[in-house]
Amino acid sequence: MSKSIFYHAGCPVCVSAEEEIINLIGADQVEVVNIGEDRSRIGEAETAGIKSVPALVTPNGNVLHINFGASLADVKG
Amino acid sequence: MSKSIFYHAGCPVCVSAEEEIINLIGADQVEVVNIGEDRSRIGEAETAGIKSVPALVTPNGNVLHINFGASLADVKG
Repeated sequence: MSKSIFYHAGCPVCVSAEEEIINLIGADQVEVVNIGEDRSRIGEAETAGIKSVPALVTPNGNVLHINFGASLADVKG
Repeated sequence: MSKSIFYHAGCPVCVSAEEEIINLIGADQVEVVNIGEDRSRIGEAETAGIKSVPALVTPNGNVLHINFGASLADVKG
């Protein structure tokens, strides 16, 4: 994995964090996934170790949870 | 402000987050401040809106709280 993946759920704090992350890392270095819309990727996010969104999975596979937005349980429910 | 500022308190989760942030953004784009050691900068961190560390203040002045590490109250106490 060479890109980071930014998972979010379309909440206001997510959108704000997304803009900042893209500014910091560069749009070409990060894939943005809205698991509120693309629910097929919720499982992948859980497997990566994501507990809440917004979160960034780095190229090393580490998860950086950013703020505390919506829990995955909320997005699913 | 042209650099981001990464505030931490030396805790394991902080050190891990610091390495990831430096990998992602580049060491020359981020100032690292250990408010556990450099306590004179706790007030500055609070003014920036930081509630917990590790946290990144972006060049736009927005705060990205990363994980939930130590509350500022714990660092002070």
